[in-house]
Amino acid sequence: MSTTEAASPHGYIHRKDDYLKRLRRIEGQARGLQRMVEDEKYCIDILTQVSAMTKALQSVALGLLDEHMSHCVVEAAAAGGSEAEQKLREASEAIARLVRS
Amino acid sequence: MSTTEAASPHGYIHRKDDYLKRLRRIEGQARGLQRMVEDEKYCIDILTQVSAMTKALQSVALGLLDEHMSHCVVEAAAAGGSEAEQKLREASEAIARLVRS
Amino acid sequence: MSTTEAASPHGYIHRKDDYLKRLRRIEGQARGLQRMVEDEKYCIDILTQVSAMTKALQSVALGLLDEHMSHCVVEAAAAGGSEAEQKLREASEAIARLVRS
Amino acid sequence: MSTTEAASPHGYIHRKDDYLKRLRRIEGQARGLQRMVEDEKYCIDILTQVSAMTKALQSVALGLLDEHMSHCVVEAAAAGGSEAEQKLREASEAIARLVRS
Repeated sequence: MSTTEAASPHGYIHRKDDYLKRLRRIEGQARGLQRMVEDEKYCIDILTQVSAMTKALQSVALGLLDEHMSHCVVEAAAAGGSEAEQKLREASEAIARLVRS
Repeated sequence: MSTTEAASPHGYIHRKDDYLKRLRRIEGQARGLQRMVEDEKYCIDILTQVSAMTKALQSVALGLLDEHMSHCVVEAAAAGGSEAEQKLREASEAIARLVRS
Repeated sequence: MSTTEAASPHGYIHRKDDYLKRLRRIEGQARGLQRMVEDEKYCIDILTQVSAMTKALQSVALGLLDEHMSHCVVEAAAAGGSEAEQKLREASEAIARLVRS
Repeated sequence: MSTTEAASPHGYIHRKDDYLKRLRRIEGQARGLQRMVEDEKYCIDILTQVSAMTKALQSVALGLLDEHMSHCVVEAAAAGGSEAEQKLREASEAIARLVRS
């Protein structure tokens, strides 16, 4: 881990490249879907791609959440007090949004 | 329905521009997420964007499915026989993938 | 298929027993969850049971939807007109609720 | 917190009655669905009930997860070491199951 990375305020920098790669692939899937619609590909095939893209996004979200809990939430929990409570409430709300989306 | 639209093999051409616009916005969200990760934005804010993007994708999928059923499935159902069965099975499988993703 | 079953207005009677069996099992899972909470079982184990129960419910929903489309929607599509439109709109709305829940 | 509550090994006892009430209502929904299938109610109406029941279950799961994180995970985080890691891994896996179900 480089000095710059160690300076990260949000704790997930050590997997930054992995997330960027996955998000670029997701961006590519969004472009692929535009081509499919442009070319009027069969609707079911487009839906299959949308499901794959949704799963890829979910997987990024679960990874980020996992890192967030291992770093931010754990640190806040160790510190205790109102910041710990706030971090936990934020995390719970983010989880609820993911579960419901 | 115009002559051009009638030529569409897959029936959703009359809303093509709307889908393309929504998919370009989704592509933009994927790029925005990369910038957020690059700049190490707060994890919870990134997750909020992922949830918004997932909802946008779901909405595209539900729209496409709706059009597919109104056109392909209805035509196949009117024709009957094994093609109708196949179209229904395909649609059911696509719905199951969406519900489970 | 018995005479009574043939008289079914909603087309899924021939798998009624299967659905009833699955729903009774789901009811049993709901009771099992109450016992787990009553006995203060480990939270993660309770959540695992909730996920299993949600999947079982989803599976019932997808089965019912599949039958509905194969019967009601296909018949309405064959008949055409405003009833076909209404059945398709209803089915699309039910699918959207499932995808978003 | 009363003496009885303090004796709870898993930390969510103080809302036990609330969870039991919600789970009994969910059990009632499962029985209601059986009656609807038995009486061959309209499929779309059954699906609407299934969606409501799924949302009620999800809500119980999110509540339990929230309590689990506020108690078990925070305590383990404060203690640190391998138990903290295990609790976090367990919680992440439970979240992933909820998001994917």
